[in-house]
Amino acid sequence: MLSLSKHCFFFWTKIGLSATSRTIELPNPLALDGGGELAQARLAYETYGELNDNRSNAILLCHALTGDQYVASTHPVTGKPGWWERMVGPGKPIDTDRFHVICANVIGSCMGSSGPASEAPDGTPYAMRFPVITIRDMVRAQVALLDELGIEKVHAVVGGSMGGMQALSLAANWPERAARVLVIASTSRHSAQNIAFHELGRQAVMADPNWAQGNYYATELQPDNGLAVARMAAHITYLSEEALTEKFGRNLQDRDAKSFGFDADFQVESYLRYQGSGFTQRFDANSYLYITRAMDYFDLAEEHGGKLADAFAGTEARFCLVSFDSDWLYPTSESRHVVRALNAAGAAVSFVELSAPHGHDSFLLDVPALDRVVKGFLG
Amino acid sequence: MLSLSKHCFFFWTKIGLSATSRTIELPNPLALDGGGELAQARLAYETYGELNDNRSNAILLCHALTGDQYVASTHPVTGKPGWWERMVGPGKPIDTDRFHVICANVIGSCMGSSGPASEAPDGTPYAMRFPVITIRDMVRAQVALLDELGIEKVHAVVGGSMGGMQALSLAANWPERAARVLVIASTSRHSAQNIAFHELGRQAVMADPNWAQGNYYATELQPDNGLAVARMAAHITYLSEEALTEKFGRNLQDRDAKSFGFDADFQVESYLRYQGSGFTQRFDANSYLYITRAMDYFDLAEEHGGKLADAFAGTEARFCLVSFDSDWLYPTSESRHVVRALNAAGAAVSFVELSAPHGHDSFLLDVPALDRVVKGFLG
Repeated sequence: MLSLSKHCFFFWTKIGLSATSRTIELPNPLALDGGGELAQARLAYETYGELNDNRSNAILLCHALTGDQYVASTHPVTGKPGWWERMVGPGKPIDTDRFHVICANVIGSCMGSSGPASEAPDGTPYAMRFPVITIRDMVRAQVALLDELGIEKVHAVVGGSMGGMQALSLAANWPERAARVLVIASTSRHSAQNIAFHELGRQAVMADPNWAQGNYYATELQPDNGLAVARMAAHITYLSEEALTEKFGRNLQDRDAKSFGFDADFQVESYLRYQGSGFTQRFDANSYLYITRAMDYFDLAEEHGGKLADAFAGTEARFCLVSFDSDWLYPTSESRHVVRALNAAGAAVSFVELSAPHGHDSFLLDVPALDRVVKGFLG
Repeated sequence: MLSLSKHCFFFWTKIGLSATSRTIELPNPLALDGGGELAQARLAYETYGELNDNRSNAILLCHALTGDQYVASTHPVTGKPGWWERMVGPGKPIDTDRFHVICANVIGSCMGSSGPASEAPDGTPYAMRFPVITIRDMVRAQVALLDELGIEKVHAVVGGSMGGMQALSLAANWPERAARVLVIASTSRHSAQNIAFHELGRQAVMADPNWAQGNYYATELQPDNGLAVARMAAHITYLSEEALTEKFGRNLQDRDAKSFGFDADFQVESYLRYQGSGFTQRFDANSYLYITRAMDYFDLAEEHGGKLADAFAGTEARFCLVSFDSDWLYPTSESRHVVRALNAAGAAVSFVELSAPHGHDSFLLDVPALDRVVKGFLG
């Protein structure tokens, strides 16, 4: 049960803005897949909607790589709306008039949960001494949070992208904890190309001299340049070629002719630079290393003896998988691969490939068909 | 005509190896699309096979972004075989028993032709004072080289990737200079996604403090880290997702289990790191900026009033376009776009999409069907 004394506020240090989120310190050390455990692990989380009396209306929402717990509330650093406000709220597909939505910042991240920027027992930031974690470790922490909140079984676990990996991991490893599993634009394993793009991003961060082997917290100098390059690389993978063409094409930015220089002549260049620099304001470079590593390590079949169907043996949950036809990061074939495994395991599963032009980011954008699928599946 | 006094040797400074290539200084200043001109422009080139008496058997071979003139001879820096030895040589599809193959290092590059690493009139390297160039500028320099070599019309102009852009540019702007135009795995314009990947690479280079606004030539410190990241990003685009999966999958590198650290656990990580670091031994970071910029600026239709067919109006050359079904950098649709324009211009054109698993790099690899197409088209 939740002990109020474990709650605390956290302070976002990077740009000096204060922000509040409920934070809980897990009562037991968190066992980790890499061996060992994380003592005094903290999870920062937000909730939306009321938990009903029999604690049966909770939805565990799992965020993506650079997401956080601010699903439907203003982000304390950027001041922007929550990342899924179009999906979560009163009367929305994930209806907070009916459901109690819980979203926790994953461990390894930097919005209040334990991560490389957190204080280690010696009073200084962990930095690269933070243990390498896995998707299952992230989920294990969230299951411990559910324990603390007194929620035995959620109505549904829901996630897109890395959130979908967490949903699959929960379904496979704690099958009794979720009645429904909704996995959007995700995969059961990182492909060689997925790993390649993440490795590129990690190398960009580590190539930045300000990274300083991860020990930059006490300095004014942050590895922002490297992190911005990493974000640019990732961002390209989030959008379809068609979306980039439709949105930017070869349009020039604030000029009538090419500059014959190295300014951002093209709109797409300007956009990428903006995405890169904006990201560094809200995200910790070491967290980026740790979370991308966790995603690259993710291979649900490998965790279960090499056969994906075995991961879901005996499950009684209902599954829904959604892919987008323009998503080349986690293409439809990856969702089909999961669906086939669920079929082989005898699970109740529905699957839909939605047509949307935006690529992987479609799960965050205005795709009315997704709203209908989510609403319908949650019942 | 070629003046022997214009020949000279160049010295590869980056790692201290000496290398020889024939180098010519163009007799007239090279007019540039960006305005102005490049005085004393030098072109380093290699030739293979004998020029016949009526000078009608020349093939102008145009290299790709990081290619060079060492098509079928040992690279002086890496000691590796030429980049197209499988295609060019006695009895090979581009048969040097029959053809006189000429390949010049493009201006802007770093293997002996004028580029940012070259000496400016003031005796110090141009660095970022080198003018921003275009694909057409590169071709204009090569046409000037043909003038000097006394070759009015080549039997064929041939190129893959950026080489194909040059072939198209020559056909559009100097239609009387080539009887045949062979364009492999290329495009008539850079897409928003193409630009995005290049901008990512440029930002990686420029984020490296050793780049020092381009003024690193006099120092021991080179922007190798940034350039390696740029190369990694580009390299991912050269391979298909299938090729990466087939080649590496999720295989671990020299270990039986994940390290739960940030070493290159996966083979694909190790491979990318190797690609990145190897590249910095043979390529100049500023050249990478200039050549990617030239490619991003490339839009053959725009150069000709916005209609691609007009670029080829009245051409008497025969064209052949080849694409690969797994190439997602310059997909088949881009080749079809060119073919439609050529059809509209009434040009003689053949087109084939080849099935090959390697992605964009297929044009450099063992694809016997490509050999047959090249041999057949050259006649």
